[in-house]
Amino acid sequence: MEAAEKPTRVGFVGLGLIGGSLALALREADYAREFWAWDLRGEVLETGKSLGVIDTASTSLDEMLAAVDIVVLAAPTVACQELLPQVLSRVDGSVRAITDVASVKGAVCDALAGLDPKDAGRFVPGHPIAGSERSGVSAAKGELFRDHRVILTPLEHTDSGATAIVQTLWEAAGAQVSLMGVEEHDAVLAATSHLPHMLAYALVDALAHASHSEDIFRFAAGGFRDFTRIASSDPVMWRDVGLTNRAAILEALDGFETHLARLRKAIDTGDGEFMERTFRAAKSARDDFARRLDAAAAGSPDQGSE
Amino acid sequence: MEAAEKPTRVGFVGLGLIGGSLALALREADYAREFWAWDLRGEVLETGKSLGVIDTASTSLDEMLAAVDIVVLAAPTVACQELLPQVLSRVDGSVRAITDVASVKGAVCDALAGLDPKDAGRFVPGHPIAGSERSGVSAAKGELFRDHRVILTPLEHTDSGATAIVQTLWEAAGAQVSLMGVEEHDAVLAATSHLPHMLAYALVDALAHASHSEDIFRFAAGGFRDFTRIASSDPVMWRDVGLTNRAAILEALDGFETHLARLRKAIDTGDGEFMERTFRAAKSARDDFARRLDAAAAGSPDQGSE
Repeated sequence: MEAAEKPTRVGFVGLGLIGGSLALALREADYAREFWAWDLRGEVLETGKSLGVIDTASTSLDEMLAAVDIVVLAAPTVACQELLPQVLSRVDGSVRAITDVASVKGAVCDALAGLDPKDAGRFVPGHPIAGSERSGVSAAKGELFRDHRVILTPLEHTDSGATAIVQTLWEAAGAQVSLMGVEEHDAVLAATSHLPHMLAYALVDALAHASHSEDIFRFAAGGFRDFTRIASSDPVMWRDVGLTNRAAILEALDGFETHLARLRKAIDTGDGEFMERTFRAAKSARDDFARRLDAAAAGSPDQGSE
Repeated sequence: MEAAEKPTRVGFVGLGLIGGSLALALREADYAREFWAWDLRGEVLETGKSLGVIDTASTSLDEMLAAVDIVVLAAPTVACQELLPQVLSRVDGSVRAITDVASVKGAVCDALAGLDPKDAGRFVPGHPIAGSERSGVSAAKGELFRDHRVILTPLEHTDSGATAIVQTLWEAAGAQVSLMGVEEHDAVLAATSHLPHMLAYALVDALAHASHSEDIFRFAAGGFRDFTRIASSDPVMWRDVGLTNRAAILEALDGFETHLARLRKAIDTGDGEFMERTFRAAKSARDDFARRLDAAAAGSPDQGSE
């Protein structure tokens, strides 16, 4: 089985928090012999080299694609969309698998339209459900994906050998790999990740424009810090998510606005019974979720990958 | 100055997370000789005693009020509203100060209407800006208020000696005390705390009702956990907040909904420039806030109480 062969060189197209953390994790797992990266920003490659994240900073995408056997597109969604056709049309037969880490899978897969299915078969769309409010290769850490989910969304024409290679890669980085369809991925992530980011950005935006914003931020505490942490995330990455997962985000937003309107009405009319019932149900759902996440982090067997 | 006299006994009316944590903090600071509590729930008092949070579990409110020199109403807002007139009409001259910890100050102060200003003068409305998604006396911890803000909202007729006593009490618990007006408090807290709680409850409520809610919670990660932590808060406490700070919460919600509608439109129309600009500004405001909170926790001198 191809997946069992240890790769010689892994090449990263784009080197930020996610690519850098994956390189560190794979290095610690002794997954490959060498780690290469190409990035339009030369200083990022220098930082990656000086931090020991990569071995070789390539100034030419073609040079790197000719040298590596696995390619990871580790860029925001729109950049992945643009880079994917270039990469697929330029790789030669020595590359065994290509994957990406973009948050929106439909948008990246759309970029495959018009390509030769034979070229596209080695591409396995992927998304690690992990991140940080910090960004850039200098924030990279090898344990970022440990016990985190990675979702792969192989397409009809995706080569099963390539999927196996990418799954093995993520498992070497400590992640739990799940497979699902592109649309399901984008709907689930719209609800759990994209919508909360939009709400956090909108809340901080609103408070920063409020008349007493100085006092607001002065007297905010730990609950507010946790609630708004994701509003410190990379603006370009989240702009791309907003641009490329429009329909699913708007649908998730519809659901949220319906429930918020009900709660607003209960506040307006003093309906304490509705509020208490809603808060109890939400607390119960959220407590269950937190327990599951704790169990997964503790490596509980009922949290294995599927 | 009265504030300098060490109190003999502090009595808590209601013993949950906040009252229990304050008792522990004051005990560690050797602030008073004895800590008493009265609560309608006898088992709570037993727990408090067995955990060493209080010395004396009083089965009679009158007995406790006759024995202590400082009274802390440590109950949710609506319970504080109901208990305050009872306490004020039953304390004798030996009680030097009465305070509360309710999240909404206007509602508690409304309960003073009709009382003799002489009785009401010893009452100093207070609110510690600290909490936890855990509740109950068994979750109490003595460091809960360390380096956290406590806001006191003394009224025109409030006795300045009583205010000084309550300020000293909170400082003994490690908190930084600020004074502000009742309305300002309720507006600031509506924005920084009440609104975020309502949004978190509404989001979890919406997702729990979504068609793919199983997958949603299965694939949610750390960002979602942080964002929804406050949805695990005590439902009764937050129902009371929703019931008693209606106008300020609705006003904060208006501001949020305006900014959310703008972001929604940008997503709908693919306005990446608007999104990136908004996300950058929000990230900058939130990063500034987090730095200030870190500086306050590190005891930076520019974060002293005012």
